[in-house]
Amino acid sequence: MKATEQDKEFMREAIRLANESVKQGGGPFGAVIVKDGEIIAKSSNSVTIDQDPTAHAEVNTIRLACRKLGTHDLSGCVIYTSCEPCPMCLGAIYWSHLSKVFYGNNRNDASAIDFDDDFIYKEIDKPISDRSIPFIPVLKREAKQSFKLWKEKEDKSVY
Amino acid sequence: MKATEQDKEFMREAIRLANESVKQGGGPFGAVIVKDGEIIAKSSNSVTIDQDPTAHAEVNTIRLACRKLGTHDLSGCVIYTSCEPCPMCLGAIYWSHLSKVFYGNNRNDASAIDFDDDFIYKEIDKPISDRSIPFIPVLKREAKQSFKLWKEKEDKSVY
Repeated sequence: MKATEQDKEFMREAIRLANESVKQGGGPFGAVIVKDGEIIAKSSNSVTIDQDPTAHAEVNTIRLACRKLGTHDLSGCVIYTSCEPCPMCLGAIYWSHLSKVFYGNNRNDASAIDFDDDFIYKEIDKPISDRSIPFIPVLKREAKQSFKLWKEKEDKSVY
Repeated sequence: MKATEQDKEFMREAIRLANESVKQGGGPFGAVIVKDGEIIAKSSNSVTIDQDPTAHAEVNTIRLACRKLGTHDLSGCVIYTSCEPCPMCLGAIYWSHLSKVFYGNNRNDASAIDFDDDFIYKEIDKPISDRSIPFIPVLKREAKQSFKLWKEKEDKSVY
């Protein structure tokens, strides 16, 4: 799949937001979400500005697009992000059902300026017992209750 | 590492929140964050309630804890989540520098009630070109500008 001239214009807007973000005190990342050829949401990284570790450009933009469209499902929308999504943002992209992702820099470029993206990708691949953060299973039998309640609920909103 | 009686009590609160969430119309997931032996934030999945695909129990709880402490860095805090974190929440846990994770259900249990956690873990492992969502690189040279600006900025807030 190749990027069209229009795709490049949307990516340039994501890059412009990333450059602007650095000047405003945010991280060097920007993103836009497009639906039917029009930008419906744009944002940049605001982790330190908002004191929110989840406030990456992609997460911020997904949340804005969902608020604008009044849905948690962005099927048919495309995201243009100035850097390959980290595992958190990749997860958010799958959960929101975006249809396509264009990215500029990649995880190695991010690693070269000391961001943890590549490190976290490597941690995910490790067996849980080998990760740098301890992950400890507990009370699995009791936790199953919630899943049983969910399974039995008839009028649930699936996502 | 083994869970103590106190750990089990915190996990029971996360499970209670997950059960409550199903009754309130949310997904079957709850989480609490503990600092110095006290719960500082608790939340549950509100994806469909808030129309926000990023509103998983862990992300919601991390955002609340950060707001409460006035920082994007939760080093020293522990999260108790009623289910093993999905890749998005795992990323959020690493970015927020939580020190430990206790979990109840795991990704296979979530898969058994039709949640995509395990599917997304498998997608992450694939080469970018084999994923179900197309990931397309574009304008890498132009995107590098933002990283150059970041690298050269002297008064930046690193996270």
